[in-house]
Amino acid sequence: MLSVDLNCDMGEGFGPWPMGNDAALMKYISSANIACGFHAGDASTMRRTVELAVENGVAIGAHPGFPDLQGFGRRNMSLSPSEIYDQVLYQVAALKGICEANDANLHHVKPHGALYNQAAKDREMADAIAAAVRRVDDRLVMYGLSGSLLIAAARDVGLPTASEVFADRTYQTDGSLTPRSRADALISDTSTAARQAVQMIEKQTVIATTGEAVHLDVQTICIHGDGERAVEFAAEIRRELDNRGIAVKAPQA
Amino acid sequence: MLSVDLNCDMGEGFGPWPMGNDAALMKYISSANIACGFHAGDASTMRRTVELAVENGVAIGAHPGFPDLQGFGRRNMSLSPSEIYDQVLYQVAALKGICEANDANLHHVKPHGALYNQAAKDREMADAIAAAVRRVDDRLVMYGLSGSLLIAAARDVGLPTASEVFADRTYQTDGSLTPRSRADALISDTSTAARQAVQMIEKQTVIATTGEAVHLDVQTICIHGDGERAVEFAAEIRRELDNRGIAVKAPQA
Amino acid sequence: MLSVDLNCDMGEGFGPWPMGNDAALMKYISSANIACGFHAGDASTMRRTVELAVENGVAIGAHPGFPDLQGFGRRNMSLSPSEIYDQVLYQVAALKGICEANDANLHHVKPHGALYNQAAKDREMADAIAAAVRRVDDRLVMYGLSGSLLIAAARDVGLPTASEVFADRTYQTDGSLTPRSRADALISDTSTAARQAVQMIEKQTVIATTGEAVHLDVQTICIHGDGERAVEFAAEIRRELDNRGIAVKAPQA
Amino acid sequence: MLSVDLNCDMGEGFGPWPMGNDAALMKYISSANIACGFHAGDASTMRRTVELAVENGVAIGAHPGFPDLQGFGRRNMSLSPSEIYDQVLYQVAALKGICEANDANLHHVKPHGALYNQAAKDREMADAIAAAVRRVDDRLVMYGLSGSLLIAAARDVGLPTASEVFADRTYQTDGSLTPRSRADALISDTSTAARQAVQMIEKQTVIATTGEAVHLDVQTICIHGDGERAVEFAAEIRRELDNRGIAVKAPQA
Repeated sequence: MLSVDLNCDMGEGFGPWPMGNDAALMKYISSANIACGFHAGDASTMRRTVELAVENGVAIGAHPGFPDLQGFGRRNMSLSPSEIYDQVLYQVAALKGICEANDANLHHVKPHGALYNQAAKDREMADAIAAAVRRVDDRLVMYGLSGSLLIAAARDVGLPTASEVFADRTYQTDGSLTPRSRADALISDTSTAARQAVQMIEKQTVIATTGEAVHLDVQTICIHGDGERAVEFAAEIRRELDNRGIAVKAPQA
Repeated sequence: MLSVDLNCDMGEGFGPWPMGNDAALMKYISSANIACGFHAGDASTMRRTVELAVENGVAIGAHPGFPDLQGFGRRNMSLSPSEIYDQVLYQVAALKGICEANDANLHHVKPHGALYNQAAKDREMADAIAAAVRRVDDRLVMYGLSGSLLIAAARDVGLPTASEVFADRTYQTDGSLTPRSRADALISDTSTAARQAVQMIEKQTVIATTGEAVHLDVQTICIHGDGERAVEFAAEIRRELDNRGIAVKAPQA
Repeated sequence: MLSVDLNCDMGEGFGPWPMGNDAALMKYISSANIACGFHAGDASTMRRTVELAVENGVAIGAHPGFPDLQGFGRRNMSLSPSEIYDQVLYQVAALKGICEANDANLHHVKPHGALYNQAAKDREMADAIAAAVRRVDDRLVMYGLSGSLLIAAARDVGLPTASEVFADRTYQTDGSLTPRSRADALISDTSTAARQAVQMIEKQTVIATTGEAVHLDVQTICIHGDGERAVEFAAEIRRELDNRGIAVKAPQA
Repeated sequence: MLSVDLNCDMGEGFGPWPMGNDAALMKYISSANIACGFHAGDASTMRRTVELAVENGVAIGAHPGFPDLQGFGRRNMSLSPSEIYDQVLYQVAALKGICEANDANLHHVKPHGALYNQAAKDREMADAIAAAVRRVDDRLVMYGLSGSLLIAAARDVGLPTASEVFADRTYQTDGSLTPRSRADALISDTSTAARQAVQMIEKQTVIATTGEAVHLDVQTICIHGDGERAVEFAAEIRRELDNRGIAVKAPQA
């Protein structure tokens, strides 16, 4: 039986400001990436989100980001590999402790925003992240962009990995995402996105914007938690997967 | 043979700003309380300070504080017990992970500044701190003001405790510290402070400002790490203890 | 013709996180208190909110708070009068500059949350705030709780003042607000609140929870911007004032 | 009579952490660039540094930086031109208000660290900074790297400018600074640096690492305030200028 992981960024409020509908989205996903306090997510939000994941039987991941609350970790920053290592270690350790205090296991790590994007193309940064995660626990699954240097770096230090794809983004012939600056970067139609998800899982391919079928490693699909139609979108993807007999579950470490 | 612990707050720089002479002080103490990022101590400073403690064979403690970098955690804040629990858990977990990544054990927890002072007198806050620490590891030693509600709260949940006294502060008849607003609050003469330390350890008493001998529980003595003469002061205390045959070592969990 | 000011806290989002429906609320109010970056409101949010106020012809006030983003400036903090002075000066000056860059005038200052509440009862803190505001511009109107020490402090340094009352809160016999811990602290029925507003303006009294009519100075009424029904509530109050022929306008400096 | 400005970054402590010896350095310089709270410098530090500059008759400049306290504004960040505009406006306005509260004028603006370096080469960013400064006051002098796009952008909107050079850095044939990654980037010998300063002022040239004399616009020389020998270095430069009969004074707006 085919299976795939559906992951979603969670706990991305801060202090008085909520973000997303975590409680509703939890019902459709198999793994939650929980913000760790640097780009979003104060200590109380983290604890509550861990509790919510536990209640829903969803695998818990750390979602470390740049120390940039104002920019939500989406602005590129130049940190040294040593700073990256230290900050990822700190954030992952903090969430791991909150998991353990709630009798839950930390299952995976998915870097956030600019840290995720820069690590996809910068091997030094990718190595620093992989080293920090491995130092915490070598059974933690590294979630990274399919085909990225982060996945390569994690494999090279012996971490299990989950290659991530996007149901609502289009792809280029080389397997990279169409840049957001282009008009055809996003798939706004839910049914089209759901069909792309099914093809990705069943055939490990995607139809590039040029029309070609391109190979992709596919272990986990990102469900965006923000946006007005996030819950509807998650429900549609999940329904389509259920219809096709594709199991939704977190990757084994 | 008599013994006592000498503890010092460490890793209290932040980013480009150093604080104190941690490397020199490490030679005289048996336990280091390392700031966890809220009142001081970014992730890289934490990692370097853990390494320094390991090199010096010094027991490592978490030194959580209020989320108030600008005020260095010294300004009273009104946080709910739930916020206190979450923030202590987060900070202790982060440092524990950094310790483990350096093959070191986390040994104790000593709250910082206003958190320490408020928890000494506020049982709800003390309970929240004790609950968070216990949830991380019930062998962690809680360092708190001798005779305080924090020590009581820690004992009540079964945590080992270390009652802290100050060699360079004077005491009142009821065993409390003379408020800093009073002219006779501080002992600036190093020899006098060293003698007070010895009496505290040997007799578990202190001579109050009224002249009376007052009982104190004494397991650990605080060495202040800031101030121009901090290293000199630490050396003097240590020398006096060595002369009296008093062993300096961290409390057993 | 009777008149009153309707004020509302605005620009209280931060980075990726919005708060309240500022655009809709602007239509019903005469003055906007704009967060200045400490408890909420980054520089871009401030600039956009100033633009919005200008478009709506609404008087602009600075809304300085404690440096506590995580706690939204609602947690009591112990800052020295000197720190209070410096931080209020900084925040007011920043917003004033943003106003001037948009060819607008800064009209008033209303402290936020815990700073507002503490300054109502702590004369030293009230004096520090008044001194800072006066140093920026002695024509700035100080908004403060009706009957509070902040109003007294502002008057004593010659600042114009606007005494603030709450349509949706109940009052005690001494003119103070019923503490939020009591069940009867809030008025959730919009019509009741609107009627209380009208009485406050027309008679400068309020019916206390004991049934007595109590005198209140009333120059400005606070419209809460958060909560699901904030816009509806603002519209109702405004309609009722219009019906009674009460003009809604910002106080003259 | 020849003249030049000596400028130094000041007020770069934060909360409990001091930086540099501002009081001693003030005696040798003609203009102080005061940190504005984003990369360093809380509100109280800003006020005290303004007072110190006033006492010493030193021209006051705003020293805005990236919102990156941990990285001291030295890490490159990708902010949009709109974010740059808003954040520079906020910081400059805050310091301007603190100046005015102390009966002092704001004289100039010098961006800090990565903001300074990125703006030297990125015209969009330079334009955003120039627009913000001009909006505050078109008589503010923009300090920027000699030959940089920031100087060009400031001129294009009609701001007065001061081209900055470094006495203790070596230069390339194209007038750019030798990258810090190269062994010959820094001039550690004080006398050599002082001689370079004199040549820069008298001839508006510098001897590049290749041996050629290269033209440079020179209106202000940066005195580094950190480092153990900062005060000694400032004194030596000042003495050499005095000996050569070169006046030290802030540029006229």
